[in-house]
Amino acid sequence: MLPEWVTQQCPDISAVHREAAVARQAQLTKPTGALGRLEQLAIELAGLQATEQPRAARVPIIIFAGDHGIVAQGVSAYPQEVTIAMLANFASGGAAISVLARELGSSLEVVDAGTLAQGEMAGIMTDKPRSGTRDFSVEAALTPTELAFAFEAGRRAVTRAQAGQPDLLIFGEMGIGNTTTSAAIAAGLLGVSAAEIAGSGTGIDAAGRVHKARVIDAAIARHDIAGAAPEKIMCAVGGLEIAAICGAVIAAAQHRIPVLIDGFIVSVAALAAVRLNPSCQLSLLASHQSAEQGHRLVLRALNVQPLISLDLRLGEGSGAAIALPLVRSACALHNGMATFAQANVPDRPA
Amino acid sequence: MLPEWVTQQCPDISAVHREAAVARQAQLTKPTGALGRLEQLAIELAGLQATEQPRAARVPIIIFAGDHGIVAQGVSAYPQEVTIAMLANFASGGAAISVLARELGSSLEVVDAGTLAQGEMAGIMTDKPRSGTRDFSVEAALTPTELAFAFEAGRRAVTRAQAGQPDLLIFGEMGIGNTTTSAAIAAGLLGVSAAEIAGSGTGIDAAGRVHKARVIDAAIARHDIAGAAPEKIMCAVGGLEIAAICGAVIAAAQHRIPVLIDGFIVSVAALAAVRLNPSCQLSLLASHQSAEQGHRLVLRALNVQPLISLDLRLGEGSGAAIALPLVRSACALHNGMATFAQANVPDRPA
Repeated sequence: MLPEWVTQQCPDISAVHREAAVARQAQLTKPTGALGRLEQLAIELAGLQATEQPRAARVPIIIFAGDHGIVAQGVSAYPQEVTIAMLANFASGGAAISVLARELGSSLEVVDAGTLAQGEMAGIMTDKPRSGTRDFSVEAALTPTELAFAFEAGRRAVTRAQAGQPDLLIFGEMGIGNTTTSAAIAAGLLGVSAAEIAGSGTGIDAAGRVHKARVIDAAIARHDIAGAAPEKIMCAVGGLEIAAICGAVIAAAQHRIPVLIDGFIVSVAALAAVRLNPSCQLSLLASHQSAEQGHRLVLRALNVQPLISLDLRLGEGSGAAIALPLVRSACALHNGMATFAQANVPDRPA
Repeated sequence: MLPEWVTQQCPDISAVHREAAVARQAQLTKPTGALGRLEQLAIELAGLQATEQPRAARVPIIIFAGDHGIVAQGVSAYPQEVTIAMLANFASGGAAISVLARELGSSLEVVDAGTLAQGEMAGIMTDKPRSGTRDFSVEAALTPTELAFAFEAGRRAVTRAQAGQPDLLIFGEMGIGNTTTSAAIAAGLLGVSAAEIAGSGTGIDAAGRVHKARVIDAAIARHDIAGAAPEKIMCAVGGLEIAAICGAVIAAAQHRIPVLIDGFIVSVAALAAVRLNPSCQLSLLASHQSAEQGHRLVLRALNVQPLISLDLRLGEGSGAAIALPLVRSACALHNGMATFAQANVPDRPA
C-alpha cells in the first residue's frame, strides 16, 4: 500500500573513496587515531558522499509537524494548541531551531504534515492528507492512504531541498503528543513494553509516564501490532509528521544524501525507515543521545553511536543542529590539515 | 617564590546575572530544561561574564610549547624534533588547531615557552627562561626562578590577548614528552600512583606505558613530591609550557575571562592552578573527556563535567576548539530565542 519507491535499493557506499579517506587520515600531522570519532566520521562521510572532500556546509533543516488524536487521553504536559503556536514561532524566528538555523547558515523549511491548522499558515508549507490523527486508543490513527500521502510529503520535501545540492539533511519535528506516538511505534517495532520506552516528553511526571505507558500498551494490544510490519504499526498508532520523516529518510538515502538524525522521534521514524528499506541504514548519522528514556534503545536498534549526550530533549531537529558543527569540524580537519610530508614533520618510527 | 599575583583572589561570579539567566531560561519557548546542559552552560557563562548576554564569539587560542628532558628515558612514541616541527606547522596553518582556528574565526598565538629551538622562529612568540627542561629522572626539571618565569610568560600571553576583549580563552600545548610530565604532576598533586594516570600519549604501547609509569613513580620518590605543594611538584617534574598555562589560567580568571579547558595536559595545568589559587576554579569550563587515561581523574578533581567525549587525544587545544561551537550554540539560544509571551505560545499549566 506504501508507494513503490519506498523499498527501492539505496546506492552503495563508495569503497574507493572510503579507502582513500582512511589512507589520508593516516598521513595527516597528528598521531594516528588522535582525532578519535571525528576521523571515523570524515571517513564515513567520504564514502557516503563518494568524494575525496567530505562536506557538511549546505545542510537544510526541514521540520515536519503534526497533531495527535491521542492527546485526548491526557498524555502531554502542554496543551495541543502549542503545535500550531510553535509553527508560527518557527516561521517568525523565535524558536530554538530558528536560532540554530541562523547560526549554522541553514535554510529552515517547516512542513505542516498534519496539524489541526485550518488553511495555510504564513511561512509554512502545507502538505497533509488530513488535520491531525485519530485517537489511537479508540481507532486506527491513519488509513493506509493517509499514511502513503505522508510518505510522499516527506519525499516531496527532499525533492525541494535537492535544488540546493545539500551535503547533509536534518529533519526535525513538532507535534504535541508525538513522544507518545513515537513510543507506541517503537514499542511495536521493537516488541518491547511501553514502560521500557515511554519517557517524560515535554515534561510529564512519574504518574504521567505510567499513564502514558498504559495507554500505549493498551493500543498495542487493541491493534495487535507487537512486532508487526512497520506499515501496519504506523497506520495503527502513527503520526503524520513521523510518517513524513520516514519517507524523507528513505528518499534522502536513495539520493545519496546522508541524514544527521535528531532525537527520539526522528530516530523512531528512521528505525521504521530501516525496517521498510534496510539499505537506507548506512546513510544515517546519529547526532545526540537525548534525555528521553527510549532513545538509547532506538539508537542501539539503529546501530549508530551519537556524537553528543547533553540531556537535550527539545526536538525540532535541535539536537542534530547542535551537533552539526562537530561534523563540520571533522570535514575541515580531514580536508584542511597538512600531511607529514607536506609539513616536513617527522612521523613516528614504523 | 612564585610571583605574588598568583595567589590573588579572582572576582566572584555575578549572582545577579546568574539569577537573571535562570529566570530567562524558564521563559524561553521550550519545555523547562529541554536544552539540558546548554541551559546550564549559558547560565554559568552569564554569571562568569557578569552579563545578560553571555558570549563566546571572540575566543583567542594560545598554544604554549615546551620540550622535556625526560624524553631521554624513551617515554614517547615520537622523536623530540617533532615539537619544533609542529610549531612551524602551527604557524604555516597545517596543524589541526590551525584548521580549527580558521573555522572558528579565532586568532592563534603560538608561544615558545621552552622548546629546544635556538633563536626565534617565524610566526612564533618566544618567551622562555631556558630551552627544554632537565631530565627529571636525574635532577629537578626546573629551578624556582625558571618556574616563575614560565608563570609570567603565561600571564603576558593573557595580557596580549586582552587587547581583543576576549569572551573566553582556549589554551593549548605542544611538547613531545608532555603527557609524561603532566602525569607526573598529576600523580604528585593527587597523591596517586603513576599507573593510575599515565596513558599512551601520542601512542606508546602497553609495555611503553608500564615503563612510563615506572619512570614517573621513581621520580616522585626521588624528589619526594607525593602530595607536595604545587610549586615544589612543578619544579621537580614540571614542564615550561605547563607552568605557563598554569599562570595563564590564573591570570585569565583574575580578569574574569572564562577558560575552556582542553585535554589532559591543560587540565593538569588547570588543576595545579586551582591548588595554587582555589578562587580560579569557577572560571574553568571543561570541553572534552579525552582518551588519555588520566584525564577522567583530573576532571573529577577539578569538579567539572566535559561537554563531549569523542576519544580525542591530540592536544594543541583541539578538543576545546572542537567543543567551542556547543558553547556558541548555548549563547545563541539563550540570547536569541523568543519567550512564551513574545511568541504568544501557551506555557504549560502551572
